[in-house]
Amino acid sequence: MTAGANERVWTAALLIIGDEILSGRTQDKNVAQVAIWLNIQGIRLSEVRVVSDNMDAIGDAVRSLGGQHDYLFTTGGIGPTHDDITVDAIAAAFGVPVIVHPEARAVLEDYYLTRGGLTEARLRMARVPEGAVLIENRYSGAPGVQFGNIFIMAGVPHIAAAMLDSLTGTLEGGLPVLSATVGCWVAESEIADLLASTERAYEGVQIGSYPFFREGKTGANFVIRSTSQTVLDDCVKALSDGLEADGFPAVADGI
Amino acid sequence: MTAGANERVWTAALLIIGDEILSGRTQDKNVAQVAIWLNIQGIRLSEVRVVSDNMDAIGDAVRSLGGQHDYLFTTGGIGPTHDDITVDAIAAAFGVPVIVHPEARAVLEDYYLTRGGLTEARLRMARVPEGAVLIENRYSGAPGVQFGNIFIMAGVPHIAAAMLDSLTGTLEGGLPVLSATVGCWVAESEIADLLASTERAYEGVQIGSYPFFREGKTGANFVIRSTSQTVLDDCVKALSDGLEADGFPAVADGI
Repeated sequence: MTAGANERVWTAALLIIGDEILSGRTQDKNVAQVAIWLNIQGIRLSEVRVVSDNMDAIGDAVRSLGGQHDYLFTTGGIGPTHDDITVDAIAAAFGVPVIVHPEARAVLEDYYLTRGGLTEARLRMARVPEGAVLIENRYSGAPGVQFGNIFIMAGVPHIAAAMLDSLTGTLEGGLPVLSATVGCWVAESEIADLLASTERAYEGVQIGSYPFFREGKTGANFVIRSTSQTVLDDCVKALSDGLEADGFPAVADGI
Repeated sequence: MTAGANERVWTAALLIIGDEILSGRTQDKNVAQVAIWLNIQGIRLSEVRVVSDNMDAIGDAVRSLGGQHDYLFTTGGIGPTHDDITVDAIAAAFGVPVIVHPEARAVLEDYYLTRGGLTEARLRMARVPEGAVLIENRYSGAPGVQFGNIFIMAGVPHIAAAMLDSLTGTLEGGLPVLSATVGCWVAESEIADLLASTERAYEGVQIGSYPFFREGKTGANFVIRSTSQTVLDDCVKALSDGLEADGFPAVADGI
């Protein structure tokens, strides 16, 4: 079932900008960490898109996703080279000029003081859409950028993590989604009706079924999600009891 | 630069359907394998979306992506449980009924002959949008589904891989993208102009810059992509020579 009637659900989208993901060269590491961090803030990651380093593709995606969700996070394309066009694409998509942010320039001047100086290429990393504010980056100088409800972050996972960390507690959200896992050595198709009826019986609960085949045996983990600890606990008990009644012992916390 | 003027570029999108990716519970493993397989077929993965197990979200995405690209691949949501709604969502999005495909039913009857029989839940996996054809699944019985230019595959990576394998050589494509990597112990910002001018000088070439920081040293890998081996080789040589001229030895095949 969907969320309870009185519950305001805050949603976010993540836009991953990078040919290296679409070519299969690089395995994305940002979806999971952004998803988990967002949930702690009470915000649900509702959609992810990956687009290439292309002005139009980025522009279309940010206009669409920024309008559909409370928050939009982007990763990638904010470095000093020719393929780093995220800021330009977002500014163009919203019809605002790109300016050099004075505070970002000062951060970079300081950072590169002992690293060869602030060149023209490095100064690219101080460019923001007009009206933006900065997101602190304690690792590598170049800051992230907040423009309206869009949070522009680095693609390198540990730098993205630091930018998320500096945003912790600053975004309005709702109730985090709580989850619990019940494992069972059963083919999910054997207890499909039980899963569906249990989900229907608990308002605001979703049950996901994740089958596996290990050491010659078929099993599945059932992930129950709710914003209410009481409802979650009740649903876990009901599902576990139902599995036992069907002759399949439930394994608490999953297999 | 973009592709050569006379080159027809075939593109595909990948739609990943699954709350488990959006919650951060499961790390996606399909983007990279689909991207690499597509490139061998001469098709470029141009966009990826991840949406939740929701009829409207899936429907909106398949209509949008299926119309924008030559091919659309989906992963996830084709099992026997209540959260497996991909076929229903795609059929609804295109206004066609869902039918039980006779050949899929026969495949499942055979597969479950020694596995407890074909129950109603298992028969869900024979359901397809009317007009669809099957994609062979040599691992676990339940087939994939081709509906127009949409290829509906399992989310489990090794089953998705088997479905891709059964499609190998059957899709029309263009020239595969060839790539080569040049590594260098340099801060990418030091040679940003060289990267941009080298990319501009070779038609149809893209150069991606992927910096790293290892063992206290700053470096980067530059990935050069082209559909022409000659152009690729020439560009690799030009970039390597340019790096050497700037005092930074190039490392063939990357660091």
